[in-house]
Amino acid sequence: MGLDTDLEKIPTHLLTHSDPVFEFNKQIIDATHEFCVAYKPNIAFYEALGPKGWESLQKTIDYIPKDIFTIADAKRGDIGNTSSLYAKAFFKQLNFDSVTVAPYMGEDSVKPFLEFKNKWVILLAHTSNTGSADFQLIESRQGKKLYEEVILKSQEWATPDQLMYVVGATRADKIGEIRKLAPHHFFLVPGVGAQGGDLEAVSKYGMNQQCGLLVNSSRAIIYASGNENFAGAARHEASLIQQEMKTYLEKFL
Amino acid sequence: MGLDTDLEKIPTHLLTHSDPVFEFNKQIIDATHEFCVAYKPNIAFYEALGPKGWESLQKTIDYIPKDIFTIADAKRGDIGNTSSLYAKAFFKQLNFDSVTVAPYMGEDSVKPFLEFKNKWVILLAHTSNTGSADFQLIESRQGKKLYEEVILKSQEWATPDQLMYVVGATRADKIGEIRKLAPHHFFLVPGVGAQGGDLEAVSKYGMNQQCGLLVNSSRAIIYASGNENFAGAARHEASLIQQEMKTYLEKFL
Repeated sequence: MGLDTDLEKIPTHLLTHSDPVFEFNKQIIDATHEFCVAYKPNIAFYEALGPKGWESLQKTIDYIPKDIFTIADAKRGDIGNTSSLYAKAFFKQLNFDSVTVAPYMGEDSVKPFLEFKNKWVILLAHTSNTGSADFQLIESRQGKKLYEEVILKSQEWATPDQLMYVVGATRADKIGEIRKLAPHHFFLVPGVGAQGGDLEAVSKYGMNQQCGLLVNSSRAIIYASGNENFAGAARHEASLIQQEMKTYLEKFL
Repeated sequence: MGLDTDLEKIPTHLLTHSDPVFEFNKQIIDATHEFCVAYKPNIAFYEALGPKGWESLQKTIDYIPKDIFTIADAKRGDIGNTSSLYAKAFFKQLNFDSVTVAPYMGEDSVKPFLEFKNKWVILLAHTSNTGSADFQLIESRQGKKLYEEVILKSQEWATPDQLMYVVGATRADKIGEIRKLAPHHFFLVPGVGAQGGDLEAVSKYGMNQQCGLLVNSSRAIIYASGNENFAGAARHEASLIQQEMKTYLEKFL
């Protein structure tokens, strides 16, 4: 579940709280955690609020029950010593379980994130936005698209116990092709809900023997209602998606 | 000048200040601004300190004289509405003049940064780290390397008045080739100093008629001395680089 918490979208009655972002997240987490395997705060929403946003983020991550996986959707990546600092920010300071990382700068930009024990890198491979075609689909002389090169090369750097991939869901059959390139890795699929993916097709083509999918939904759940019962509405939406996913787990696993 | 301010590297007498990071930056800026055309805080160094780091960053950017260009070295990039929030964080909240952006997610991940008037995107093209070879040098069926595709395609999105490129300096002759692909754009060259670039060769091969180069040096200046006279030592180093650059401006421009 994506915690893309936006002061302009949360119910207005929360704005009188001293920390409306955390208050919203707290009520959403209370209402949805029993249906949720992972929470994914989108870091930009917090960063755009300045130091106070980082405090809301820290309180949120501290509040999430410890048996639920946490993903810092940050898309960081820089030269080695700088990536080490980003890794420290998300894995030590904030104590996230995982962080999304951009591959453009190559191995030494990713490795510092892999040096933390029991933490995960979720590497951008094939994203779901229209601009993904600009560079990710460029085909090399060897006949491999850039996102395929990213998936194949990065498997030399880490095991499936340290590394996942971001794989967009706008064309579910493509997930089946990508699954062949990385049969044992988990995929974070960001495209279901507001971005228009199809959960059944994603499950059918994308699952492996351990399920291997973390399918995200953000706005469809957290903004299910804009009134005082927003948390109850979010709980209802989350339960529907969880039940739908349960059907596919029984059908395709 | 890179403001890669690290609590473990700044003179220990500063650690008694309530905000040692800002105190260090303030003294460095006071000592060096007359030799400096741009300050480039590396955002990871501030982010790793949590909310307090963002406060130090805000105070630093507010303190930099208004006639000096500012670069948020953040390497952000995400789907459109998320990139808009990152742009808001750096261009509005912090009021930077420019931000470094990663190209992997394509046009709609970069465009939101371009929508701010009188602000600049500095797009990663050919970086100076060893991992840059992993993906940036992959050659397409059309015979173009990925960083060349990035430079050519992104010129369709923005003019040289909105867009610059990060071009590493570890092989200066390569900068000459890249200059042919983008004759009118400024290049941010991060590789001089600790990363081992050669300022004369970079100037010779990389300059265009407007100079077209922002050559960065971080650690060689700001950590020139670890004692109480660190600011004076930084001033001396900055003046040496400025004088060297002046020679090349006269020689090659």
